[in-house]
Amino acid sequence: MGKFVFGVDLGGTTVKMGLFADDATLLDKWEIPTDKTDKGAKILPDIAKSIEEKIVEKELNREEIIGVGIGVPGPVDKQGVIYKAPNLGWDVFNVNDTLSEMVSLPVKAGNDANVAALGEMWKGGGAGYRNLVTVTLGTGVGGGIIIEGDVLAGFNGSGGEIGHIHVEDNEEKICGCGNKGCLEQYASATGMVYIAKKRLAKDEMPSVLRETDDLTAKMVWDAVKAGDAVAIEIAEQFGKYLGKALAGIACVVNPEIIVIGGGVSKAGEVLLDYIVKNYKPYVFFGSRETKFALATLGNDAGIYGAARLVIG
Amino acid sequence: MGKFVFGVDLGGTTVKMGLFADDATLLDKWEIPTDKTDKGAKILPDIAKSIEEKIVEKELNREEIIGVGIGVPGPVDKQGVIYKAPNLGWDVFNVNDTLSEMVSLPVKAGNDANVAALGEMWKGGGAGYRNLVTVTLGTGVGGGIIIEGDVLAGFNGSGGEIGHIHVEDNEEKICGCGNKGCLEQYASATGMVYIAKKRLAKDEMPSVLRETDDLTAKMVWDAVKAGDAVAIEIAEQFGKYLGKALAGIACVVNPEIIVIGGGVSKAGEVLLDYIVKNYKPYVFFGSRETKFALATLGNDAGIYGAARLVIG
Repeated sequence: MGKFVFGVDLGGTTVKMGLFADDATLLDKWEIPTDKTDKGAKILPDIAKSIEEKIVEKELNREEIIGVGIGVPGPVDKQGVIYKAPNLGWDVFNVNDTLSEMVSLPVKAGNDANVAALGEMWKGGGAGYRNLVTVTLGTGVGGGIIIEGDVLAGFNGSGGEIGHIHVEDNEEKICGCGNKGCLEQYASATGMVYIAKKRLAKDEMPSVLRETDDLTAKMVWDAVKAGDAVAIEIAEQFGKYLGKALAGIACVVNPEIIVIGGGVSKAGEVLLDYIVKNYKPYVFFGSRETKFALATLGNDAGIYGAARLVIG
Repeated sequence: MGKFVFGVDLGGTTVKMGLFADDATLLDKWEIPTDKTDKGAKILPDIAKSIEEKIVEKELNREEIIGVGIGVPGPVDKQGVIYKAPNLGWDVFNVNDTLSEMVSLPVKAGNDANVAALGEMWKGGGAGYRNLVTVTLGTGVGGGIIIEGDVLAGFNGSGGEIGHIHVEDNEEKICGCGNKGCLEQYASATGMVYIAKKRLAKDEMPSVLRETDDLTAKMVWDAVKAGDAVAIEIAEQFGKYLGKALAGIACVVNPEIIVIGGGVSKAGEVLLDYIVKNYKPYVFFGSRETKFALATLGNDAGIYGAARLVIG
């Protein structure tokens, strides 16, 4: 019987790694750099080496290790095939098989946002729920959909790509995905700044936000909390984009709870207020009482979820 | 081992019923009226009686019957609990348990649109696929989401309620659900007529559609096929609402195929053309190659899907 599990959260800059007991106790946590040279060919060998070193260091019995879960920044299907990860340099291949051969342990890979969702379900803001949507508001907007306890990976691993739901017809700027008017263009940290700059340029209404050249989403939320009228308008527009999009998502998957994480969520409960008041009027009545919560695992959601992925 | 299965499609006017072999062969098909008196209390006893009569008529051995599947017009959760069906007069209760007691057979209930989706997956336009979205364009707009072969019922049975995705901010008319600007208000048969009437009222541009007082969606599609410029504009707007909404849905669930059924789908391939060209520009690239197909089971999708629900 396995007792231990490794959870790996592969990012563009660092690989976060965790050793867990099968009851979700985090026993150890460390990081290694992501070496993207040679089209990312060194990434998995580096991870395998680090796991091997930890097994030796902790004097673990190989038979007691359930396996390795890994969250990867790209679309991953149920079989562990990644369909390109441009910011790692990776093309299409089976992550499960490749890493499993290197570590001689069972491996299960998933999309990083989906895996983080599993983490929040297991031990975070969504603990106790089996039907949830998680939203990560960071540099981009990521999503994870969990149905009856399982990640909705989608046909080719593109399930939960909620940052690319089209929400604005009048947009000239192109999103990272190549489309125009994606949710991510407004509801990410940079998106909120984009909304803010547009609003500030519209007129001369006084605002504390005019006092800086280096506006951030945090500044906007701080100004909202301080009662700045322009900041409140910005938060309202941000909430409208996100609330309406989440209402649409809820019409599709009818979650019990929506868990909001990522850097922008550090704004706290005020963020949920602006989302919920723009969610309720647009959602089907069956999902009107869907709960909202803030994510609680922060940057550790990925390693928790990766561990959960293997435990199954 | 079971060899036979009953599939029941409970509608507001009639109950469609089918007897199937477990290889999906439809052996017999019949209907009984839906008696909505007494808050719908007679509906399940009537169904039980009809099944009993069929068992006698066909001299079926009870041990050879796998069970009864039933599609119900309302939200139904995984346990068979219906959360009200206003057009039957039903309140909250467990359909599985109630009907099972009456027929002394295993019963599995599902939402009618979700069940029809299962039917199309089993033997219709989505045969061979395990990740699909079905859209029923009829009096309303219904949806069924199937993930890895299973219906996405949602937390309280409101999964796949895609007709109530908010798609239009500038709407004064109230949708049947109580909200404003739902997809159903534009992409149903009546919705298409609504779009058409608004367009016709806008100016005096000549159109064959002006020659009738009793406009239907079929007339609009016929006019589109005949090259009527106004009808083409109407189809374009219809396609924009539906294509964009389906693109949003695909960002969430990443289906391999989207199957379009319901009365409006009788327009044929031209309908798919208008949907697909308004889907591709708005969808995340991972879902850009999602296939589109017309439903093929017509009014029988419900009984097929109900049978499939029991076979599992």
